[in-house]
Amino acid sequence: MSNRGPREFFAVRQVSEALSGFRPARRTKPEPVALDEALGRVAPEPIVARHPLPGFARATVDGYAVRAPDTYGASEGLPSYLDLAGEALMGRPPELEMRPGNAVAIATGAPLPIGADAVVMVEHTQAATTELIEVLRPAAPGDGVVRADEDAVPGAELVSAGRPLRPQEIGMLAAAGVTELSVHARPRVTIVSTGDELVPASTARLEPGRVRDAVGPGLAALTRQAGGAPAYGGIVPDDRDALTDTLARALPQSDVLVVSAGSSVGARDETAGAIAALGEPGIWCHGLLLKPGKPTLLADAGGVPVIGLPGNPRSALVVFRLLGLPIVRRVGGCSHPPAEPTIRARLDRHLPSAGGRLDIVQVSVAGGVATPLFGSSSLLSVMTRADGFVTVPEAATGLAGGSEVEVTLYG
Amino acid sequence: MSNRGPREFFAVRQVSEALSGFRPARRTKPEPVALDEALGRVAPEPIVARHPLPGFARATVDGYAVRAPDTYGASEGLPSYLDLAGEALMGRPPELEMRPGNAVAIATGAPLPIGADAVVMVEHTQAATTELIEVLRPAAPGDGVVRADEDAVPGAELVSAGRPLRPQEIGMLAAAGVTELSVHARPRVTIVSTGDELVPASTARLEPGRVRDAVGPGLAALTRQAGGAPAYGGIVPDDRDALTDTLARALPQSDVLVVSAGSSVGARDETAGAIAALGEPGIWCHGLLLKPGKPTLLADAGGVPVIGLPGNPRSALVVFRLLGLPIVRRVGGCSHPPAEPTIRARLDRHLPSAGGRLDIVQVSVAGGVATPLFGSSSLLSVMTRADGFVTVPEAATGLAGGSEVEVTLYG
Repeated sequence: MSNRGPREFFAVRQVSEALSGFRPARRTKPEPVALDEALGRVAPEPIVARHPLPGFARATVDGYAVRAPDTYGASEGLPSYLDLAGEALMGRPPELEMRPGNAVAIATGAPLPIGADAVVMVEHTQAATTELIEVLRPAAPGDGVVRADEDAVPGAELVSAGRPLRPQEIGMLAAAGVTELSVHARPRVTIVSTGDELVPASTARLEPGRVRDAVGPGLAALTRQAGGAPAYGGIVPDDRDALTDTLARALPQSDVLVVSAGSSVGARDETAGAIAALGEPGIWCHGLLLKPGKPTLLADAGGVPVIGLPGNPRSALVVFRLLGLPIVRRVGGCSHPPAEPTIRARLDRHLPSAGGRLDIVQVSVAGGVATPLFGSSSLLSVMTRADGFVTVPEAATGLAGGSEVEVTLYG
Repeated sequence: MSNRGPREFFAVRQVSEALSGFRPARRTKPEPVALDEALGRVAPEPIVARHPLPGFARATVDGYAVRAPDTYGASEGLPSYLDLAGEALMGRPPELEMRPGNAVAIATGAPLPIGADAVVMVEHTQAATTELIEVLRPAAPGDGVVRADEDAVPGAELVSAGRPLRPQEIGMLAAAGVTELSVHARPRVTIVSTGDELVPASTARLEPGRVRDAVGPGLAALTRQAGGAPAYGGIVPDDRDALTDTLARALPQSDVLVVSAGSSVGARDETAGAIAALGEPGIWCHGLLLKPGKPTLLADAGGVPVIGLPGNPRSALVVFRLLGLPIVRRVGGCSHPPAEPTIRARLDRHLPSAGGRLDIVQVSVAGGVATPLFGSSSLLSVMTRADGFVTVPEAATGLAGGSEVEVTLYG
């Protein structure tokens, strides 16, 4: 294969095609996790209730448990008089059995006495004597009560497969006594940075011509946002053999493999060659109709997604956020990714764009106005100054100044 | 103080008042953190660049470094002929010094040779001989180049105070060689659950009348979403002395103290009494114009925010998400919380509401239609079935079926 060969051989794709069509098979295996560590994790199978919840009929108001028919027709003018037969104790099994004409004092959350089918709010009653109450309004069966299986019937899904667990699911699992559960392992995302000019971020003093690797830590942070476990695969010079070796060693430890290419055309071709050598079915897309991000590579190495990112730091972060995060989530079993925050804003100037290509434009937002931020795709500061980004779709040749646009906000 | 005393003594507030006016002084102290652990953390002070970034003038395209005036007037018909004087090496200090009429081959990212002020894209050149190139278009000074300080001038803010760090800030700090930084410690949020009926989530088999503590684990998960460090302060029976003791012991270890009250009116009053005993200035609000969530307490115990939540699980989670998360964030130094995802949807039925009160209504969303989910505020399943919630503002007495509403989506 010639030095510049792979560029000619493979498809250039639209972003939407890549999002829907690039589907390497890898999924992480399930692992047990404690409930307190389960926030945001993804269950591979639904988790169902084994017992009814809350498990017994409970009062939802403070008042008196009654047999509803005993209150029919009650009014302020003509109350029902009921005999106070005791108190339902919180946290204790129901002991009292209601007889016709009985009322039992009950607090919110306490179990309904046997034979009661409604709770009358204390505000709708009046003490006649210490042993007799007046009920001023009729109660229907079920009023002021949750049924024993109203929160969950046995077999009800407490947690769906493929959806990151939210605080309310954590609470629901606690209610059901599930304190350990099976979730997909976090995808191991190995990040390899390439470039003769790159040195680790820990380098205190730079030699002229050198730059610290900003892309690796930035990609690691994005990986964490998607629920992945990042690992650094090292900084490799622009050398096909060195890169091929590094990637081949990283592959068996990776659920997703990410390479930020060198920034030059030659270095990108070396990266393409090294990725192509990783295994079958190999490169799926070589180039995206995307700005920034045209030189993106996507490959499938025996089921493991391999993402070749552009060498420019901002391009690399934009592409990984757009394409890499959905891939990491999918490998981690997530079929329903969380929504991203967006706002609508008025564009304060014209945004030109070439048709046939998706443009991602960084913007700052203030007072309902979105201001595009421009600059070389090597500049990270364009992205640190941004509150979010606007997309110019393939079909458009720009967005008019003054038009309303949707801004995706950085979390 | 009588058993039911505190309810009469303190203000009932609007939610907006509580959000803006309840401002206990506590802020967590700074602690050092490694860059790889800094995602989402909040710096107490701006972090500024100490050196220019990228540190040297770099090519942003593959091509030839030139002195721009040597290309003025160049065209396809009448190219400028320049002597190929060598190659700028990636990652090495610039060695070559440009003379008038020189061109130096350069790849994207390589340092500009001394005396060059522009890079002509290789596509705009042609090799005339092995030692001579034709430049087909004129270049202006700065074309194809990023300046040595274009990403950051010394003193530029790389990170602002009070804003959670995003992946791009992590990248920028790496570029600047900042691999350890000072951030606010995670707020320690102690969660105390009260109720005679409550048992730990780990309880395998429930006695009749008992329920597992779902609120504690749910609040812990919400705390994590806000960047806090949750700790369980235990399950306490509905007993003022036991609760007062537990809270007094938890306070010195807490940056925020949260108590889910027992569900009955009496239990809530015990909670109010125990919170009032914690210290000055004490209870700030006793009751919110909010549904669910009316019996919420907010107190300031020597600077530490104390949040007394309703006993019903769903009410507790709704209130803590609405009021507790902003408090936890603020204590952790965050002055610019991240935006929440929202969508607009059409309400599929009328939502009645009492005027003068903020209503939080759980909804499921499908196909642009929001369906309100109703049920007792003791039911967590109403919230696990929800995709988000709709708010009915204080001024409204309901929302009309068919109207467009904004749904805040659960992350």
